[in-house]
Amino acid sequence: MSDAAVWDEARRRIQAAYDPALVRGAGHRLADLLAGHLTALQAGDGCVLPWRRPPESVAEACRMLERGPGTDLSAESLLERFAELVTEMLRRGIHLHHPRYVGHQVPASVPVAGLFDAVGSVTNQCMAIYEMGPWATAAEWAMVQELGRAIGWQPGHFSGLVTHGGSLANFTALLTARNVTLGDAWERGLARDGPPPVMVVHADAHYCVSRSAGMLGLGTNQVLRVPLDARRRMDPNQLDEMLRGLRATGQRIVAAVACSCSTPVGAFDPLPDIADVCRRHDVWLHVDAAHGGAACLSTRHRHLVSGLERADSLVWDAHKMLFMPALCAFVFYRDTSHRFETFRQVAPYLFDPTAPALVEFDSGLRAVECTKRSAAFGLWGAWALFGPQLFADLVDVTFELGQVLYQKLLAAPDFEPVHEPQCNIVVFRHLPETLRDAPPEQLGRFQMDLRRRLIESGEFYLVSTNIDGVGALRVTIINPLTTSDHLDQLLDALRDHGRHLLAER
Amino acid sequence: MSDAAVWDEARRRIQAAYDPALVRGAGHRLADLLAGHLTALQAGDGCVLPWRRPPESVAEACRMLERGPGTDLSAESLLERFAELVTEMLRRGIHLHHPRYVGHQVPASVPVAGLFDAVGSVTNQCMAIYEMGPWATAAEWAMVQELGRAIGWQPGHFSGLVTHGGSLANFTALLTARNVTLGDAWERGLARDGPPPVMVVHADAHYCVSRSAGMLGLGTNQVLRVPLDARRRMDPNQLDEMLRGLRATGQRIVAAVACSCSTPVGAFDPLPDIADVCRRHDVWLHVDAAHGGAACLSTRHRHLVSGLERADSLVWDAHKMLFMPALCAFVFYRDTSHRFETFRQVAPYLFDPTAPALVEFDSGLRAVECTKRSAAFGLWGAWALFGPQLFADLVDVTFELGQVLYQKLLAAPDFEPVHEPQCNIVVFRHLPETLRDAPPEQLGRFQMDLRRRLIESGEFYLVSTNIDGVGALRVTIINPLTTSDHLDQLLDALRDHGRHLLAER
Repeated sequence: MSDAAVWDEARRRIQAAYDPALVRGAGHRLADLLAGHLTALQAGDGCVLPWRRPPESVAEACRMLERGPGTDLSAESLLERFAELVTEMLRRGIHLHHPRYVGHQVPASVPVAGLFDAVGSVTNQCMAIYEMGPWATAAEWAMVQELGRAIGWQPGHFSGLVTHGGSLANFTALLTARNVTLGDAWERGLARDGPPPVMVVHADAHYCVSRSAGMLGLGTNQVLRVPLDARRRMDPNQLDEMLRGLRATGQRIVAAVACSCSTPVGAFDPLPDIADVCRRHDVWLHVDAAHGGAACLSTRHRHLVSGLERADSLVWDAHKMLFMPALCAFVFYRDTSHRFETFRQVAPYLFDPTAPALVEFDSGLRAVECTKRSAAFGLWGAWALFGPQLFADLVDVTFELGQVLYQKLLAAPDFEPVHEPQCNIVVFRHLPETLRDAPPEQLGRFQMDLRRRLIESGEFYLVSTNIDGVGALRVTIINPLTTSDHLDQLLDALRDHGRHLLAER
Repeated sequence: MSDAAVWDEARRRIQAAYDPALVRGAGHRLADLLAGHLTALQAGDGCVLPWRRPPESVAEACRMLERGPGTDLSAESLLERFAELVTEMLRRGIHLHHPRYVGHQVPASVPVAGLFDAVGSVTNQCMAIYEMGPWATAAEWAMVQELGRAIGWQPGHFSGLVTHGGSLANFTALLTARNVTLGDAWERGLARDGPPPVMVVHADAHYCVSRSAGMLGLGTNQVLRVPLDARRRMDPNQLDEMLRGLRATGQRIVAAVACSCSTPVGAFDPLPDIADVCRRHDVWLHVDAAHGGAACLSTRHRHLVSGLERADSLVWDAHKMLFMPALCAFVFYRDTSHRFETFRQVAPYLFDPTAPALVEFDSGLRAVECTKRSAAFGLWGAWALFGPQLFADLVDVTFELGQVLYQKLLAAPDFEPVHEPQCNIVVFRHLPETLRDAPPEQLGRFQMDLRRRLIESGEFYLVSTNIDGVGALRVTIINPLTTSDHLDQLLDALRDHGRHLLAER
């Protein structure tokens, strides 16, 4: 081919890829495919997880890439292939919108939120600086104001931002805490004399908290775990004792990390008492409210997060109990003066001397991300469309079902709840008669094997956890269309698979 | 309202929010709105940036939230409101798909990629563990294999993952380098005796590299900048000298960071020489190929990244020169044995003892994110739809236009290119006659003021940079529908606004 022909061919391919008619046609196909898919799932059709071994899935994804378009870039052929690919994507994914999905703290999201999100994806609205995403910035700010008010703060006094997930959010907040607490760690690093600083955390804190210590150069060994009370909440008296001991020996303390709620069993820490203790010892209080922050919006459950407004920093994931698609995690600072401590910008207004006021709105000065997607579009859109009451409803309905499941477990002789749930996270064990006197290790392993068997059957998706070293089943009711009947079916399915598992041994 | 009525009302609201018919209707509206929007932009209608001061945008976003739905949750009313909200979002965003957008390294993305992405957003496909996103995992793996092959690696020997942005990608790779280089820093932290470790970086490295040193506990003061050659590439001889000096004094070196290409002027480092130097001194070589990695796919430009396959780690953003919507950043390790060093998991197969083989596919063991969105869906879908040649075309067409602009600048007496561009990043200054003998500071400030004036007019969007302390204009041709004519118009617009600016003074 001549050079000119090569350029023509390239331009033709680019025109095909950027043709607005392709977006129109593909968008219409997508709308129909998604609606059909959701309708089938809501009816309880098919499986929750179409289980296949990972290497098989990867091989199939590679094969689809290789099949390619050939030379036919006609709109008709592209649309046909688009629909085929989307159909495969829908078929081979996990089906969170199936009412028998009761798994991780990842919701059956409000579907239309994904379409608001797509406005950002198709037009590539980003941040880092306000100019590059004026409306992405505005939507994020509006939601920061809305949620900050729900926490109990006054406009102008606090700061917030959106980042890509709860782990990154906790890391960001703890980075800020480290910089504020340790003075010049940002510039000079941690390699210097003196006893290494510590972080004091809820014994059941999410793994990302201890990881943060590893990433921040503190070291995972420097994470001290505060013992829990009988309901697996951080014990304020034990925290008090630990902080007193540390202060007495002149230890530097980066932060105390509480949970609203904890990951394993969904326990909400007694924040007013914890905040008192932290104030007494002058320690930065960080609260991981990734899951439980949403209780702020519910009249019924607000009491669970009483005291949250006293945290120095906190994390609240919209992609958990605000039922948004991942990822949209909020970081909040009670005191707005900490907002530029994360990266220790001394004079952020120098960023762009032609418009110094913009720095307040340039997300890159406060987020680990430089280019940042318009992650708040889904939440902003859904909030504007349905109003705040929908989010309270979602909390109320799913928390209520947590109690319903708990009552069923209490009533069933062959099930044992591990705790009295405070929200929609319920941990329990199945105890068939023959395992009644089994040693804990065997009992725990049975729960794990049972779960694997059940999820690979596709009938239900639930997860497992480890309580005091013994495996247990863990359910999060995070699809608001799950009903009490589905929970009965869950217990029956566990009994059924349990029987087969025991029979095979 | 009675309690029962409250619950009924809540269920009614949830049903409305999860109604598949709403997704269908909203999806159709969205398709038409997006297609209309893109058609207008491609025709060059309207402005690039609808400039408004940030507080005004935020206030408007808040007002739209407050307006709310009232009690009317009928499908018809929700659809009407959905379309209104989307219309506002489109109108108030920046218009990267306008051919007069020549700004940051954020592309006018392949629009249909955003629709593949939306499959993940609407159905909330995530990772952390394979089970929660079997197809999200498969698509990511398939693209890791595809891009790894393009880099020049053999399957099975390297590892890769997707993360949320180039900054997080560089951080992740440098965290791995820190852990490998410093032994037990993960567990014990950096607070200990001995000289503090250093990081040796390209003098023009992106700000996230020095930030990484701050986040990792190394300290931003421990970042040593290697001088550049005349084309602003890292000088291998200077690197050699620096590393020799550091080794001679027993300094611990976390990594050397090269650029393919640098952010300010798009300079590609001489990687074969740099890799030789790093091998000689046994130093981890990290390459920030966020922008330039895509040159691997182009026959014309592959030479620019020759030697990339010798990096110990590298970063390649699909949301830059693969023209994907943000965020989709790849981290690669040449040696797959480093894949679990990021978080120093000693025995990752213990993660789930019922299925130890899954850990290879559980993204949470290698990514900062725990829950991670299906960020590779857009790339996987677009690659499957159009084939790999489209991506080579996009590189070729935009790099070519970089040369076209450079020639125009050389030919214009009132413009001065700052460098000879190697890709689609072009830096220059406007030099009206009256400023010919102005001091550099005044000249630099003129470029910055001129840029602000032009972008706020909405006619073009370009950025600025700082070369040796003096402001300059910076263009990235990252909309493949930008033409040579648009570049002529850009120079004219700069002349025009420059004249008014000077006249006002």
